Amino acid sequence: MFTAELPGLTAETERVLGIAQAGLTRVIRIFDDELRSDMPEVGALVSLVERYRGKMLRPILTLVVGLASQADASSRQSLDALREEHYVSAAVIEMVHMATLVHDDVLDEADVRRRGPTINRLHGNEPAVILGDLLIASAYHLCSRLPSPEAARMVARASVVTATGELLQLHHRGDFDLSEPTYSRIIAGKTAELIATASELGAWATGAPSTVCSGARAFGLAIGSAFQIQDDILDLLGDQALVGKSVGKDFEKGKLTLPAIRRLAGFGSSRGAERGAFLALLERATRDEDGRSRAELARDLVESGAVASARRRASEWISEAKDSLGVFEPSPARSALEVMADAVLSRHS
Amino acid sequence: MFTAELPGLTAETERVLGIAQAGLTRVIRIFDDELRSDMPEVGALVSLVERYRGKMLRPILTLVVGLASQADASSRQSLDALREEHYVSAAVIEMVHMATLVHDDVLDEADVRRRGPTINRLHGNEPAVILGDLLIASAYHLCSRLPSPEAARMVARASVVTATGELLQLHHRGDFDLSEPTYSRIIAGKTAELIATASELGAWATGAPSTVCSGARAFGLAIGSAFQIQDDILDLLGDQALVGKSVGKDFEKGKLTLPAIRRLAGFGSSRGAERGAFLALLERATRDEDGRSRAELARDLVESGAVASARRRASEWISEAKDSLGVFEPSPARSALEVMADAVLSRHS
Repeated sequence: MFTAELPGLTAETERVLGIAQAGLTRVIRIFDDELRSDMPEVGALVSLVERYRGKMLRPILTLVVGLASQADASSRQSLDALREEHYVSAAVIEMVHMATLVHDDVLDEADVRRRGPTINRLHGNEPAVILGDLLIASAYHLCSRLPSPEAARMVARASVVTATGELLQLHHRGDFDLSEPTYSRIIAGKTAELIATASELGAWATGAPSTVCSGARAFGLAIGSAFQIQDDILDLLGDQALVGKSVGKDFEKGKLTLPAIRRLAGFGSSRGAERGAFLALLERATRDEDGRSRAELARDLVESGAVASARRRASEWISEAKDSLGVFEPSPARSALEVMADAVLSRHS
Repeated sequence: MFTAELPGLTAETERVLGIAQAGLTRVIRIFDDELRSDMPEVGALVSLVERYRGKMLRPILTLVVGLASQADASSRQSLDALREEHYVSAAVIEMVHMATLVHDDVLDEADVRRRGPTINRLHGNEPAVILGDLLIASAYHLCSRLPSPEAARMVARASVVTATGELLQLHHRGDFDLSEPTYSRIIAGKTAELIATASELGAWATGAPSTVCSGARAFGLAIGSAFQIQDDILDLLGDQALVGKSVGKDFEKGKLTLPAIRRLAGFGSSRGAERGAFLALLERATRDEDGRSRAELARDLVESGAVASARRRASEWISEAKDSLGVFEPSPARSALEVMADAVLSRHS
């Protein structure tokens, strides 16, 4: 459940999230129906995907934006206002997201996801790559059920940008000179774009005017960037048991994230000994076998204030996200979006 | 060029293939435009995909079926009869096919494709997996340019079936009891389905009646199965320099193909010494380091007539394919499809 953990909930916003939660059962039914296979060999593998299901941030976002973007005030609080387009696009986005998770776990050589073994860990990389491909194809198959190709165009565009962001990240692997603007482009691509599209599709399915669709998109883009910064901080500081997936993978894979980028920027143009010592520590952390160097690095990044600085950047994104909600009329659904935005910062898993 | 190598060519069919060849330049332009990236880091990787381009069987098939399925006899010999839908769907199919090749090379740990190093060999598995995802997303993005979601539905369905066939194949890896019906289902899924859809889309884009679309689909399905049997024989007997991609991968990956399946079936219910010796040879070939056991296996499969028997099965598929051309009016375009069907059997790469 998404609602139980959120700070700043009022009875009204909780009601809206409850409506979205109820709508989610229909999303899940559409999702499962699409993936049903008559081959037992395939069905067994596909059923593993269910275990990957998390808080379902993206489909909930589609549904809540679907409510918030209604022209009529009473529709903003009624499940009846949501149309087939909302449910199908929410399921499509979740399926594309799942495919990304399955492929990411192969790329990251991750062993744990949602407190269970990953598909690559259980069955090897080959079925995991193909299962990801199957999920992507199923997502577009589902999407083609909608009468216009518009949703497919948006989802495909988002997936192109996601892959581009991931390629950019790979290109900068092991690059300790990675700049903050390039890091921002990477996370906007690999994470924020799909969340932005989940949000935009909610308004699109409502048939909202283009300013509202753009505002919804901007909201998703901003919370998406905050989400990834928080994810990177959890990878750095999180406890695997709490986070529920493999942690410490970023440094192992030579990915520089915001705390380290800000720490390095803090040295300014100085090429002094302190900077040299930090770079040496970074180097050790990427080759770390027993986790000791990574723990030392994490301590350095907390004590130097670099983690706090990264957290501030995430907060700024959340403020930006809330500003873009101005395109919606005030309503409990819009307040629910604010609550969801805040929840991005307070999450621990 | 596709035309130069084909047996049974007449001047008329050559003219039709020339028209399709001319249409291909437009398909390639659509393909390249879709993949153009403004990020140099991404563009460099994407440009590697061009090297994977082969004879372009699938898009040529879409275009030639596009001609053969015209209601008006003169349109069957004119490039003007082809519409935007023909070109876009041909480019979409080729892009989906390329994505499959990129991912397959990762799964097969292949080093060579089209006489050059594979992308996974050059840059590692991670960019290869993401590049495949980028190609798939780009294919659906391109497809959403068409006014109806029908083509996307067909392509997505084909990709689901392709992945399902691949999962079925993985499931039976190392299974020396693999039956011929299951092998047929595997190749119908992993290879023939996309070729069937390439063919069907040609008739769909023409706006041909459903019987013609079904005939086109049946044609593609049959040549696709023949194509994969021939591919499996080339993997067994082919010379890497001639085939242009890694060979001997099937046994290395524990994939039983038709010659071995027919060889095993030839022993009937006998569990005698000869069958035991053959199974031991199969076992050795899957673990073969220096290629000697694989060479011995290949010799056994040729000398026992198992390869000839597999070739006969491929010929039967080609006869079936030609039978399904009955839905088309006789025309040089229809004859060109017959020539293309025969070419599947005579190819060496």
